Amino acid sequence: MKSMEEIIQAAGEGEPARLVVAGAGGREVLKSVAEAQRQGMVKPLLIGETQKIRALARELELNISPGQIIAGKSDREISEVAVEKLLEDQDILMKGLVETSSLMKAVLAAKDRLLKRRLISHLVLAEVPALDRLLFISDGGVNIKPGIEERAEIIQNAIDAARQLGWERPRVALMAAVEKVKSSMPATEEAAILSKMADRGQISGGVVEGPLALDNALFQDAAGIKGLTGEVAGQADILITPDIVSGNLLGKSVVYLAGGCFAAFIGGTTRPIIVTSRADKAETRLASLAVAVLMSD
Amino acid sequence: MKSMEEIIQAAGEGEPARLVVAGAGGREVLKSVAEAQRQGMVKPLLIGETQKIRALARELELNISPGQIIAGKSDREISEVAVEKLLEDQDILMKGLVETSSLMKAVLAAKDRLLKRRLISHLVLAEVPALDRLLFISDGGVNIKPGIEERAEIIQNAIDAARQLGWERPRVALMAAVEKVKSSMPATEEAAILSKMADRGQISGGVVEGPLALDNALFQDAAGIKGLTGEVAGQADILITPDIVSGNLLGKSVVYLAGGCFAAFIGGTTRPIIVTSRADKAETRLASLAVAVLMSD
Repeated sequence: MKSMEEIIQAAGEGEPARLVVAGAGGREVLKSVAEAQRQGMVKPLLIGETQKIRALARELELNISPGQIIAGKSDREISEVAVEKLLEDQDILMKGLVETSSLMKAVLAAKDRLLKRRLISHLVLAEVPALDRLLFISDGGVNIKPGIEERAEIIQNAIDAARQLGWERPRVALMAAVEKVKSSMPATEEAAILSKMADRGQISGGVVEGPLALDNALFQDAAGIKGLTGEVAGQADILITPDIVSGNLLGKSVVYLAGGCFAAFIGGTTRPIIVTSRADKAETRLASLAVAVLMSD
Repeated sequence: MKSMEEIIQAAGEGEPARLVVAGAGGREVLKSVAEAQRQGMVKPLLIGETQKIRALARELELNISPGQIIAGKSDREISEVAVEKLLEDQDILMKGLVETSSLMKAVLAAKDRLLKRRLISHLVLAEVPALDRLLFISDGGVNIKPGIEERAEIIQNAIDAARQLGWERPRVALMAAVEKVKSSMPATEEAAILSKMADRGQISGGVVEGPLALDNALFQDAAGIKGLTGEVAGQADILITPDIVSGNLLGKSVVYLAGGCFAAFIGGTTRPIIVTSRADKAETRLASLAVAVLMSD
């Protein structure tokens, strides 16, 4: 997959995925659902305030039957019903107008059936005009200061997601401020440790390398100036940051300052979960839906 | 100052600044010096391999007298001579082809005369096409994991630099992943503490506010969605990150993925010091020179 357009196109090609929306009574939320349905990506099941959903659906010309709406009042109730339905017979879950914490609580309560491993993580897939490829960034949204074993799971979640989306052997760069290992900068030592864990097969399905700085992870000429060889430097598909602050700043700067289109989703679940934020545009929600549809195939 | 072009223009208007270059025998280095001289910004003093400097100067049509070249061999010797000359009668120091660590050692050895306070810090000033203003980012290059009092100095250095460049009362955002204070995310508590220190006058000359996330620091609509008021949210001029990794990732993503032109320099010194890197283009070096010239006025 080279572009978000390609992903959106591919997502419309197979059978529509069954999508459950937690908190569907918002205009931007339903707009993206309507567009995804129009493109043949999804068949929605909408949880939330029935009246509001009906009114908005009419306005947005979203074609749904009464059986596709389920009433729910509090964030907690909506989240629990949505997760229950997801596990029953739905393919994808999208967060609409409920608090992320409520939804995550409901997801974690069903962890035996919904989690692939101990840990879920936040992933951004961004289209960056300055790059010739799409870029995954993790984790700027869920895990605050993960330890080594948690970071190994974050990396594995990202590799799994990229593979589900068609990257055969994704290249993972472990980010720091420099590419040399320095004890004074823990992120560089952690990157060294995680690289070796991947060498030993403790992380699989991709090539994992670090520490790298942003320029020498992404651009071949910057990697060349530093004399970095190997399959990752200058060619990274996935950037893993050491903590939530660096992941959030990097993700948001790519998205808001350098970005075209982007998708945001959760890694490490058996069924794709999309956690968009209130401020996200319909375009972002559609891209996130397309990513989830492809992952659910 | 609204754009890098305006800064470059303004830098050419006054008397040329006396510029000492540590390790001048590099093509990209001398190219920017030649251009800065042509625009009336600087009168250079070049330290390094005399033969090489002469040959390159001829090739680049850089007009210099023999008294403007001083021989120096090792990085250490070049750095020490450069700092000595800076303190003697020069206005600005630019790192050319010497290791940053050598130059910083020479700078710190002269700390009584060259440092304004205990700490120096790294600053990037970037032109971001997605924004209507220039943006300072600190510290992605010098201080690895600064404590609260060190961060207060980093903030003060950034405010001082912005004021020297014409920002009357710069707006400083203290970055985290979210805008709420959470004990589980130390960057948010540190931001709260530093905000209060600024309220108490322990940091002065600007408005300091945090924690903020990138979108609500930079964009009014994102700040509005979160209900953030005050002078900083949505209007930040300066972004301060909690550590070197987040500062480096944010700075590099702004520069390499979202950027037009940028300048990099050191804050907290009595005379401007520019620390560019080997990979920087002549354009970046010229912008950095222009910033230093304006700061030295």
